[in-house]
Amino acid sequence: MENRIRDSFARQSMMQTLGAEITQVSDGEVIITAPILPGSRQQHGVAHAALTFAIGDTAAGYAALTKMPDDQEVMTAEIKINLLSPAMGDQLRATGKVIKSGRRLVVVSAEVHAITGNTEKLVAILQGTMVPIAL
Amino acid sequence: MENRIRDSFARQSMMQTLGAEITQVSDGEVIITAPILPGSRQQHGVAHAALTFAIGDTAAGYAALTKMPDDQEVMTAEIKINLLSPAMGDQLRATGKVIKSGRRLVVVSAEVHAITGNTEKLVAILQGTMVPIAL
Amino acid sequence: MENRIRDSFARQSMMQTLGAEITQVSDGEVIITAPILPGSRQQHGVAHAALTFAIGDTAAGYAALTKMPDDQEVMTAEIKINLLSPAMGDQLRATGKVIKSGRRLVVVSAEVHAITGNTEKLVAILQGTMVPIAL
Amino acid sequence: MENRIRDSFARQSMMQTLGAEITQVSDGEVIITAPILPGSRQQHGVAHAALTFAIGDTAAGYAALTKMPDDQEVMTAEIKINLLSPAMGDQLRATGKVIKSGRRLVVVSAEVHAITGNTEKLVAILQGTMVPIAL
Repeated sequence: MENRIRDSFARQSMMQTLGAEITQVSDGEVIITAPILPGSRQQHGVAHAALTFAIGDTAAGYAALTKMPDDQEVMTAEIKINLLSPAMGDQLRATGKVIKSGRRLVVVSAEVHAITGNTEKLVAILQGTMVPIAL
Repeated sequence: MENRIRDSFARQSMMQTLGAEITQVSDGEVIITAPILPGSRQQHGVAHAALTFAIGDTAAGYAALTKMPDDQEVMTAEIKINLLSPAMGDQLRATGKVIKSGRRLVVVSAEVHAITGNTEKLVAILQGTMVPIAL
Repeated sequence: MENRIRDSFARQSMMQTLGAEITQVSDGEVIITAPILPGSRQQHGVAHAALTFAIGDTAAGYAALTKMPDDQEVMTAEIKINLLSPAMGDQLRATGKVIKSGRRLVVVSAEVHAITGNTEKLVAILQGTMVPIAL
Repeated sequence: MENRIRDSFARQSMMQTLGAEITQVSDGEVIITAPILPGSRQQHGVAHAALTFAIGDTAAGYAALTKMPDDQEVMTAEIKINLLSPAMGDQLRATGKVIKSGRRLVVVSAEVHAITGNTEKLVAILQGTMVPIAL
């Protein structure tokens, strides 16, 4: 499963553009980290909400994929993000989790932390729905 | 107001990374377009949800900014995206609108269309909340 | 279709508790109205958010049902509500609409207006996902 | 604080209509339970989504209120609900929690479980934003 997710992730050119990496894959949980690149910022120099969203949504999607059989993958049907604090620091870390895995829908959540040295701060939470699709 | 928005947009390095441009600014409505760059894709080669989100959220945010006095700007408090169809085509166009502008919160929406030649298709809708903040 | 919707609605005891009525059914759009009963209020005497939600969600769901074949109905998978203003007046009116009807998911929206005499005010907007299920 | 919340709750006539009760109040967390009354159902006899929403939203709102000074209360700005399973059982229990309490916004979540005898099942999750307002 981890290989399958890493292969899929490697084909997501957006993840490379953002410098994102898969840090951990386990059953129902995937962690993705990304630096706050010079090209990933909003007008005040902190991470753009789109970076936070990108890794949160992607971590949640791959968490859902850990629950799928080999002949299915998932697509985001919808996802909501609440931004709690400006995302600044050395890097962002998104932890995606499966809340409920069904045959037709997988409900997921994600938390995104900003990490600076040894400290971390919760900067966003996401809640969404992934849809299994046949390959 | 249009100058103010274009200045702010120019400082958003993420928008440059994604190749996004402001196409139109009017009272309560902002349109942003972006090509689907080779570096903005998901694993099947269509636009990554983060691109769709990025321009939808940003268009909605600047639509809110058109309602703000000069000493305030806005931040996204939360936004939800429903993805309707795979985002493929020549480019994406996000139209952000103000639904309700209050002193403390601005409720916004956005539609994102994929454009191919003369045809366009609605690929995502967003609904969210922007918060005015003092500069 | 209208009969089918009215039959289903009549079996929703919550709609009767809230005094809600179906006002209009057309292809992809359903309107539901409800008084703000003495038993439907929050602590300041205006309509409880649950009333606004109840008719918004139900109108959106039946709008989706207008797109379904006879052997399917729909369930709410998820829905988000932004509350714009306190819901006070003679009655509330929810207009549910289909944004995108797919085989697996139906994306919907709803607007809820508070009506007082001849005036009306938009008090809430909803955006959600309905799932077709076999009867 | 618990008295303040119970007083406010007692003035919410919708909570009485639905038979809801506050079960527990602690710092940043409030639990509300409700039976699935004959008048709180959808067309198949299980709890209407509006009941699940009502107690989830209200529990989240009062959780936010535990963080407010005496001269402020809160209103729901927006909230999203994902419905995971049909809500059937003896009663529903909503646990509302504060995720981030700010001066201008309080981000909250809630889980709703259906309880039957000694078993419980997660039937919905909510994520939303409360706004402090001066009394």
